[in-house]
Amino acid sequence: MASIKVHGSPISTATSRVLACLYEKDLDYEFVLLDMKNNEHKKHPFLSINPFGQVPGFQDGDLTIFESRAITQYLATAYANKGTQLIPNDPKKAAIVSTWIEVEGHHYDPPGVALSFEHLVKPLFGLGETDPAAVAENEAKLGKVLDIYENQLSKNKFLAGDEFSLADLHHIPNISYLLATPSKKLFESRPRVNAWVTEILARPSWAKVTALRNQS
Amino acid sequence: MASIKVHGSPISTATSRVLACLYEKDLDYEFVLLDMKNNEHKKHPFLSINPFGQVPGFQDGDLTIFESRAITQYLATAYANKGTQLIPNDPKKAAIVSTWIEVEGHHYDPPGVALSFEHLVKPLFGLGETDPAAVAENEAKLGKVLDIYENQLSKNKFLAGDEFSLADLHHIPNISYLLATPSKKLFESRPRVNAWVTEILARPSWAKVTALRNQS
Repeated sequence: MASIKVHGSPISTATSRVLACLYEKDLDYEFVLLDMKNNEHKKHPFLSINPFGQVPGFQDGDLTIFESRAITQYLATAYANKGTQLIPNDPKKAAIVSTWIEVEGHHYDPPGVALSFEHLVKPLFGLGETDPAAVAENEAKLGKVLDIYENQLSKNKFLAGDEFSLADLHHIPNISYLLATPSKKLFESRPRVNAWVTEILARPSWAKVTALRNQS
Repeated sequence: MASIKVHGSPISTATSRVLACLYEKDLDYEFVLLDMKNNEHKKHPFLSINPFGQVPGFQDGDLTIFESRAITQYLATAYANKGTQLIPNDPKKAAIVSTWIEVEGHHYDPPGVALSFEHLVKPLFGLGETDPAAVAENEAKLGKVLDIYENQLSKNKFLAGDEFSLADLHHIPNISYLLATPSKKLFESRPRVNAWVTEILARPSWAKVTALRNQS
């Protein structure tokens, strides 16, 4: 029996971030599907795993944690020698990966999530119509972030160096959703960003996550 | 000459987060003061350190990085054996610290920053009057986060265990500002949060940062 358990839903970007990481690390796990439409993640017993009531929750033997980016960092370090190396051993190279992990979390993610909310979550969950002003505002914000990515990707093949890292992986779930929306133009209009997106979405790990998503 | 350079301003919470960490790790550094009132952080040459134009920037020999939480994590790991241990060696204990670092960044920080903006930044920089509706909204959000902290602090002395860690340290600069505002009631009304705040703000490392701040 797998000692690793992931509690969540494959349609959640945060859950699929962790699943992509597990496939990169070639680790077995047990998936505990939560019924998010019935707010199972907002109730006990899930609140004993994550008191903030957000997926995913994660267990590895006697360890219980939450927050997708903390989980992936744990997997990358505790299982450093399994599968793809996602954080370099050298502390200075690791620091560059950490920097771009923070960039994803604090610069990319807020407008990225706002755009997927407007284009996809609102229609899917009957939360009202897409607001064009909110789309325009967040496309402008995300565009500025991607201008910096375009420049960064002129120096390295990936965000934090010439090797795929956790910093790239963290972006995959949100980008995969935005490519199905009119906001895909933000990625397609920037050649180096476009090449990077094509490369990271083609990871076999991500194909396994989308297969799970399509089953659910 | 110190190999570590910090570019920023001691009035910035992100800069002082890094300075507190340097003092905890007992590391020498050179401080490069940026004239933020004249937007020095939005111009070259600082943009070559951080293309997002935010303080602090950080150098250690040939390494150049930004994002305060990436910098502190680098200091905690690259200088693991110096000063206070801020991330445990055991990967499972480190994962709990990572979880609460993410909680600070994604749950505590947004309302905490919004409140310091309303109460302090707006009047100080002539950006208009404090908006009571924004204060109420963000106090409600921060209150929910601190309810979870109150419960967490019933299990451990600090957020991520019984030892002070990087997860606690990351909160200090924002809390120190909010204690000078009416929003201090959010901390003072929760006994375990109040004791935790008293403890972490009494760190000698923080006294050194506030001394720097008062000189500037």
